[in-house]
Amino acid sequence: MTYKTIFEQISRKKSYLCVGLDTDIRKIPVHLLKETDPVFAFNKQIIDSTIDYCVSYKPNIAFYEALGAKGWESLQKTIEYIPDSHFTIADAKRGDIGNTSGLYARTFFDPESSGLNFDAVTVAPYMGSDSVIPFLEFENKWVILLALTSNSGGADFQRIESNGTPLFEQVLIKSQEWAGPDRMMYVVGATQAQDLEHIRSIVPDHFLLVPGVGAQGGNLEEVSKYGMNSHCGLLINASRSIIYAGNGVDFAKKAEEEAKSMQQEMAIYLDKYCV
Amino acid sequence: MTYKTIFEQISRKKSYLCVGLDTDIRKIPVHLLKETDPVFAFNKQIIDSTIDYCVSYKPNIAFYEALGAKGWESLQKTIEYIPDSHFTIADAKRGDIGNTSGLYARTFFDPESSGLNFDAVTVAPYMGSDSVIPFLEFENKWVILLALTSNSGGADFQRIESNGTPLFEQVLIKSQEWAGPDRMMYVVGATQAQDLEHIRSIVPDHFLLVPGVGAQGGNLEEVSKYGMNSHCGLLINASRSIIYAGNGVDFAKKAEEEAKSMQQEMAIYLDKYCV
Repeated sequence: MTYKTIFEQISRKKSYLCVGLDTDIRKIPVHLLKETDPVFAFNKQIIDSTIDYCVSYKPNIAFYEALGAKGWESLQKTIEYIPDSHFTIADAKRGDIGNTSGLYARTFFDPESSGLNFDAVTVAPYMGSDSVIPFLEFENKWVILLALTSNSGGADFQRIESNGTPLFEQVLIKSQEWAGPDRMMYVVGATQAQDLEHIRSIVPDHFLLVPGVGAQGGNLEEVSKYGMNSHCGLLINASRSIIYAGNGVDFAKKAEEEAKSMQQEMAIYLDKYCV
Repeated sequence: MTYKTIFEQISRKKSYLCVGLDTDIRKIPVHLLKETDPVFAFNKQIIDSTIDYCVSYKPNIAFYEALGAKGWESLQKTIEYIPDSHFTIADAKRGDIGNTSGLYARTFFDPESSGLNFDAVTVAPYMGSDSVIPFLEFENKWVILLALTSNSGGADFQRIESNGTPLFEQVLIKSQEWAGPDRMMYVVGATQAQDLEHIRSIVPDHFLLVPGVGAQGGNLEEVSKYGMNSHCGLLINASRSIIYAGNGVDFAKKAEEEAKSMQQEMAIYLDKYCV
C-alpha cells in the first residue's frame, strides 16, 4: 500500500485508527472456546464489527506464536480475512543480521513462503542498517521502526544522550538514510505526547504508529494536536480498550461502539489539526 | 539448566561449541526435499552427527517462521529431538512491552502453551527492563541479551558513546540490575575480539554467546584467549560452517568432521585459557 493510498483511506473513513489484534486466548469470551479456532473466531467478529471505523489492523505476533503452529494458522486466517483496503501491520519487533532479517521479511511479506502477506512489519533498530534494509527489499512493503516506546523500560536506553541527542533521535536521524516516508514509519509511544512536537521536527513527513492511547493512558487529542501533519501522518493503535471492551456474547458490539467512538473523535481532530 | 551444569557439560565434552541450526530449506541437500519434513530430516541428521562435539544447539527462529505454521512444527520436532544434556537456545531476538514479552517467554519456555521448551532465548535490549524481565520469571530459564553484535550495522547504534561509554556497555551495566550470571548471558560478536578483554572486565562471570566464528570470520583462539573465564564462560556458535560443510548425501558426515575439528581445537584452548 502506498503513502497516498493510506492517506486516501484516512480521508475517506475520517479515521486513523489501527485496531490491535492482541488476541489472548486466556482473555476472549468463554463461549468462543468451543470453536475449532477460537482465536480466529474472535478476530473475525472483531474485524467485522470495527472495519468501518479503522484503516489498519495490527496483530501482535507474540499472542499468536505463544500458541505454536496452531497460533500461526490463526494468524494466517486472520490476515487473509482482512480486506486489501486495510493496512496490515505485523507487530513483530524483529531484527537480525542481514541474511536472517531477509528471512523475517519473507515471513511477513512473502505468502508463498509463510502464507502471510502483511503490508508492514515493526522492526527493532538495535542491530542497525543491515538488520533493517532487507525488509525494504520487498516492493510496496513498509518498515515501522521502533523509536520511542511507551513502556516503563523504554527510557533505560532510548533516552541515553550522546552529545545532547538521545538514542531514539539518533534512530530517527540515521534511519532516514535507509528509506524515506514512503517506505518507513516510526513507533512513537503516546504516553510521551510532549515529545511528539519535537519528533515531528525531525521526521516531518513520516507516519508515526502511536500505541498507548486507551488502556496505556495516552491522550488522543494531545497526540493528534502535536503529532499530525498535512497527510495526517498518524496511525493510532488501540488494542485492549477495543477488543476487550466487552467480555460476553456481545463483545463484538462493544468493540464496535468503542471503535466508533474513537473514529468520531478522530473525525473532529482531522478537521482541526490535519492542515 | 544451571550455570554449574553447563560448565560440567563443557568440562566433560571438552567443548564449548554451539551448533546453529539455521536450516534454510533452499540450501539443504536436494535429496532431503522428498522427505515429509525436510527441515526436520536435515536437523535430525545434523544433531546425530554433531551431538558428541557440542554442548548446545541454537536454531535461529527466522529460518523456521519463514515457512509459517509448517516451520513451527519442524522447530518443535527439532527441540523435542535434542536431549536434555544439551543447552537449547531460541535465537529469536525478541522484546516487547512487559505483558507481550511475557507471551514471548511462554512461546519459548512453556511447552503447554506453544509446544516448545528451550533453555534460553536471545532478547533485544532496546525496549529496556520490562521487555526483558518477563523472560526471567520462568525458573531455570535464561535470557541471552544482545550486547555487541557482529554484523556491519552493529556499530550504527551499539557504539554510540554517552560520556565515553558506548551503548553496548550501558546494556551490559544496566542489565546486571535484572539478573546475574546464573540467569543471563550476552551476545558478543566474535569479529570484535579486541573488545572481549574489555567486556570481560564489565561482566567477568557471565557466559558470552559468541557468533561469527567460522563463516563470519572470527578467530577461535583469539576469542578463547580474551573471552574465557574460570568457568569457560563462552559458548561459541558456528552455523553455516558446520551445517553446510557438505551438500551431498554425506552432508552429516561433513558436519561431523567440522564439529569434531572445532571441538579438538576447543579442548586445547580449555586447557590453555580456562584457568
